[in-house]
Amino acid sequence: MVTASQPSAQPREIEFWLDFGSTYSYLSVMRVEDLASKHDIHVSWQPFLLGPIFQSFGWNTSPFVLQKEKGEYVQKDMARLCRKYGIPWKMPTEFPRLGVLPLRIMLVGAGQPWIPEFAQRVMLLNFHLDRDINSREEIVIILTDLGQSVDDVLGQAQSEPIKKRLRDQTDNARARKVFGAPTFFVGEEMFWGNDRLEDALEFAAATKGARVGSQGNPP
Amino acid sequence: MVTASQPSAQPREIEFWLDFGSTYSYLSVMRVEDLASKHDIHVSWQPFLLGPIFQSFGWNTSPFVLQKEKGEYVQKDMARLCRKYGIPWKMPTEFPRLGVLPLRIMLVGAGQPWIPEFAQRVMLLNFHLDRDINSREEIVIILTDLGQSVDDVLGQAQSEPIKKRLRDQTDNARARKVFGAPTFFVGEEMFWGNDRLEDALEFAAATKGARVGSQGNPP
Repeated sequence: MVTASQPSAQPREIEFWLDFGSTYSYLSVMRVEDLASKHDIHVSWQPFLLGPIFQSFGWNTSPFVLQKEKGEYVQKDMARLCRKYGIPWKMPTEFPRLGVLPLRIMLVGAGQPWIPEFAQRVMLLNFHLDRDINSREEIVIILTDLGQSVDDVLGQAQSEPIKKRLRDQTDNARARKVFGAPTFFVGEEMFWGNDRLEDALEFAAATKGARVGSQGNPP
Repeated sequence: MVTASQPSAQPREIEFWLDFGSTYSYLSVMRVEDLASKHDIHVSWQPFLLGPIFQSFGWNTSPFVLQKEKGEYVQKDMARLCRKYGIPWKMPTEFPRLGVLPLRIMLVGAGQPWIPEFAQRVMLLNFHLDRDINSREEIVIILTDLGQSVDDVLGQAQSEPIKKRLRDQTDNARARKVFGAPTFFVGEEMFWGNDRLEDALEFAAATKGARVGSQGNPP
C-alpha cells in the first residue's frame, strides 16, 4: 500500500512485493534498485508470505512443484534468464524454501539503506549457494557483513509486533488480489512477474502528477 | 517437431505452438512474422488444442477462469500489452473460445503463404470483434477475403486425416511437455509465453550451424 501520510509529498514509487522462496522474485531482487534508480523511482520493499496465498487457492505448495512440466521448464527458463542478466543460478535442492526469518528482518529494517543488499544476500543464499534461508546462523553472517547489530535486529524480528506485521502484509497482499511473486504496484496499478518490472517502472516514471507534487512547485 | 527430412538443408526456424482461444497466443500471432522476418527466421505454425493439455492437469477450463485473481489481472495485463504493441483488444464475452475449425484449417493450409494472415484474422475475430471463432459463417468470410477456395478448404478441414492430425498435434505437444500457449521451440529448446518470443528468436538467430548448412557453402 502507498502509505505516505502526505500525498502531496509523495515521490514516484514502486512497491515491490516479494517472498524469498520465489524464483522469479530472485531475478527482481537482483535487478530492481539499479533499474529504478535510472528512472529516479523509489523502491518500497514489501515482504510477504506466498504460502498462505497459494493455500487460499487450494494449493499446498508452489505451482512449480504441483505442475511437473511447468516446474521443469522454470529451471531452464531461470538458467537462461540468469545468464542473460549476468547473475548466478543454482536450482535449490529444497524448493520452495521458507524464509520467515529474513522476511521479518525486512520489516525490522524497512526503509533503511541496508535492506536492498540484505535482500540480495538472502536471495543468493537460496538461489546461488543453495543454503537454508531460515537459518539463524546464515542470517547472522549477513547481518554482520552489513554492519548491523545482530542481537538488536534478531530480537526485533522475533517480537510479536513484527510477527504480526508479516501476517498483516500477507493479508494485505491477498486483499489486493496478489496471486504470485514478484508483484509490483504503482499506486493501484498491478504488474505481476519479473517480466513486467521494466513496464512497471516505465508506468511509474510516466506518473508525472506525484513527481510535480513532490517538488512543490509545478513549472 | 523439426521435421526437415534433410537436416543439412534446414533453415533457421522457430516453431510456434498456438491455440486460437489463448489470450497470450493472440499477442504472438499478431507479432511473430514481423519479428521473425527481421532475423530472417522461418515460422513453423503449429496449431494444437490447449484444452486436453489442461485436462491432463486436472483442470476443466483455463487457469484464467479457475483462478479468479489471475483472470482479473490478465484482462488488465492484456489491455496494457495491446496498447504497447498497438493492436486492438476486447476481452471476449465467451472465454476460452473453442477454435477447432480454424485450428484444422491451419493444418489444411500448413506452409502456405495465406496462413499467417488467416491466423491473425481468426485471432482478431476472438479478441477484437468478440465473435465465435468456431462459426462456419465467420470462417467462410475470412477464407473468401484471403482468396481461398472455401469448399475445398472446409471439405479438407472436416476430413478424417485432418481431424486426426489435430489430435496428433495435441498429443505431440503433450509429449514435448508443452503446458501452455503460446509455446516456442527452437530445436528442442522450449520458450513459454509471448514474453519469451524475442528471446526465442534471438536464440534461433544465434543457431549459426543450421544457417550455414542451409546455404551449403560455409564461408
